[in-house]
Amino acid sequence: MNQYIDINELGRNAKSASRKLSILSETEKNALLSAIHNALLENKHKILEANERDLDRAKSIGLSAALLERLELNTLKFNDMLSGLKQVIELKDPIGASDGSWINTDGLEISSKRVPLGVIGIIYESRPNVTIDATALCLKTGNAVILKGGSDALETNMAMMKAIRSAISFTNIPEGCVQLVESTDRALVKDLLEATEYIDCIIPRGGAGLIQFVVHNSKVPVIETGAGNCHIYVDAEYSVESAIDIIENAKIQRPGACNAVETVLIHKQIAPKLVPALVQRLRNQKVTLALCKEAMPLIDPPQSGVHLATERDWCTEYLDYKLAVKLVDSMDAAISHIDTYSTGHSESILTHSYENSRRFTHEVDSAAVYVNASTRFTDGYVFGFGAEIGISTQKLHARGPMGLHALTTTKFIILGKNHTRQ
Amino acid sequence: MNQYIDINELGRNAKSASRKLSILSETEKNALLSAIHNALLENKHKILEANERDLDRAKSIGLSAALLERLELNTLKFNDMLSGLKQVIELKDPIGASDGSWINTDGLEISSKRVPLGVIGIIYESRPNVTIDATALCLKTGNAVILKGGSDALETNMAMMKAIRSAISFTNIPEGCVQLVESTDRALVKDLLEATEYIDCIIPRGGAGLIQFVVHNSKVPVIETGAGNCHIYVDAEYSVESAIDIIENAKIQRPGACNAVETVLIHKQIAPKLVPALVQRLRNQKVTLALCKEAMPLIDPPQSGVHLATERDWCTEYLDYKLAVKLVDSMDAAISHIDTYSTGHSESILTHSYENSRRFTHEVDSAAVYVNASTRFTDGYVFGFGAEIGISTQKLHARGPMGLHALTTTKFIILGKNHTRQ
Repeated sequence: MNQYIDINELGRNAKSASRKLSILSETEKNALLSAIHNALLENKHKILEANERDLDRAKSIGLSAALLERLELNTLKFNDMLSGLKQVIELKDPIGASDGSWINTDGLEISSKRVPLGVIGIIYESRPNVTIDATALCLKTGNAVILKGGSDALETNMAMMKAIRSAISFTNIPEGCVQLVESTDRALVKDLLEATEYIDCIIPRGGAGLIQFVVHNSKVPVIETGAGNCHIYVDAEYSVESAIDIIENAKIQRPGACNAVETVLIHKQIAPKLVPALVQRLRNQKVTLALCKEAMPLIDPPQSGVHLATERDWCTEYLDYKLAVKLVDSMDAAISHIDTYSTGHSESILTHSYENSRRFTHEVDSAAVYVNASTRFTDGYVFGFGAEIGISTQKLHARGPMGLHALTTTKFIILGKNHTRQ
Repeated sequence: MNQYIDINELGRNAKSASRKLSILSETEKNALLSAIHNALLENKHKILEANERDLDRAKSIGLSAALLERLELNTLKFNDMLSGLKQVIELKDPIGASDGSWINTDGLEISSKRVPLGVIGIIYESRPNVTIDATALCLKTGNAVILKGGSDALETNMAMMKAIRSAISFTNIPEGCVQLVESTDRALVKDLLEATEYIDCIIPRGGAGLIQFVVHNSKVPVIETGAGNCHIYVDAEYSVESAIDIIENAKIQRPGACNAVETVLIHKQIAPKLVPALVQRLRNQKVTLALCKEAMPLIDPPQSGVHLATERDWCTEYLDYKLAVKLVDSMDAAISHIDTYSTGHSESILTHSYENSRRFTHEVDSAAVYVNASTRFTDGYVFGFGAEIGISTQKLHARGPMGLHALTTTKFIILGKNHTRQ
């Protein structure tokens, strides 16, 4: 399975294909996506069988239940994946739209047009649906894509890729528009990260380890995604019941999501009422709590599943039924804590104060800043983008949930009449 | 002069200052810029004296005339620099503007607001005016800035920095909003490139060597600027006189600029008339020409200053009175040559054909694509942005001339009413 693979050759193919893709009409791109949809459907059984082989191998090497769950592509997930692909077909193609046009003082007509990025590299882990999500979003925006999925999912990905290739082969679009690195060799990831000549942008999708590896080793520009150490600050006078409802939702509605809350900061004035009630509700939901030493005495008598927080808790994205709780003297102290520990993903203030709502949204430096809502809403679909390639936690290019727009760039087109510069 | 400098300490100061800067009003930011303007004016003589010391040292170590010209800060250049600063004060502050707001299906009010990037690192070479240009653009957009200028200009930069610090000291804005790495130690550049915890974006300004070093070594996201191997393609039926006027302008109006043309691609049909006349005009202007072997026979008898082009010529950004010329069989061949050799900066087609003008602008993948105009117009001021921090030749975040907008990012602000996700 690990035959010799030359990333530069994939890069050249992709770059060449991207030139063709960039000038396709929306109708042509949608036809390609429909053909891929149909080919996947036709090969459903082969793909699910390949996934079973991946699962068997993963079980035999002792992968955790959580990882097996991510790797699994059952009929339900397969159908969801295909309906996601259908949804992308329905979205409006952003390519060709103008960000503005004007005539400069020399009389040149200048316009800024949305164009594809070119070639996008996606480096991801075991979820096989990323293969199709990323392919759909990249092709819809006229980008060629090079996919490097997790080793665990290689057979599944290869089976899907075979279907994609067969769909492409009936068009006049070059095969290089979608390519999978069909290998488990991790050295090829490094090659991808250094292919500055061919790849315009790398998007890592997966855990913090993968993302940090990509950010620290890539020569190609990267869009950093995903890590979410998210906070909710409960202001002095907020309603205790509402606060508990929102925190519970932000914690347990999907604990493994990057937009789940990890630390709750509570104004000391509301703490005597809020902390015991919050602990009770979350303990009923099997959530373990790490309380700061000021909050601990509010739980009397001591409870199982509640322990004293350490510095490590403030830094940790649990992605689990765990929550850290810290009392603060003021909103400023809460903002300062967020400033120190947040990954810049999503933070929320629960308040009835107009002034505090404004200050919190102005001063907290994260991709999504909420007032009186659960952090769980940070999501491309929920925001109304129709799709999501990831959630950017960096500030360049795209920040927060990324839809089709994030996969485009601009080009200035300047129309003259024998203009020379004086 | 090379006392121990801890880049992380500069980083912490900058990050802390950036929090204050991000919530200043436009009036406060303009007042700060005016104070800096006045402090520079008051210290003009000290600054020019420091520049003379830098120049003396540079001469004594044998710096080239071109480098000395860049390093020199005479009264004329000083006044230009200050009027540039005044112009930035006049520009509209982009911070706080909305990129859109909507209500999602859950009833959340979502808006995307322009906010500062945070902390920007500028790494540049000997031109001392970059110190003030970059400071003005960063502060105007509420960003803190860390400046690492060229060693040659250190005394000049330190004298300007002293004036900037005195201006800041009369405000309640932290000193960390503008910091200069006051050292000639090149190892500190590497430290800057690794300060991911504190710096949000690095912008290199200078020659190709510096830019490539930064792109290849930075862990902090970079906006790549400047390298311009620019092309003009002359279509089969264009007017010979107009073509020569435009090419001459693009080559010699300022040969050292990144938007100057370096290779001219000529349709073979127009070549017999165009090549001899073009060579004659450019030879009169002391331009050396590298001609492809198909073009060479058109110069009869052979001329001095005209030699046979090699592969190296197609790759070179001369930044000098030199031009490469290549004949092509078709526009497709021209686009293919550009695709292979261009740095993605600026390209122009000279044509009377509607179809070719559209195809060229669609298919050429560069930041600025022209029809019937000199490439010399790619410039933030000329485009009407009022200022320029550089010209991006990458596709992420910003592409082409970058004004104030390129120094901002977005933040989603989401207003709810006890919203929880179902």
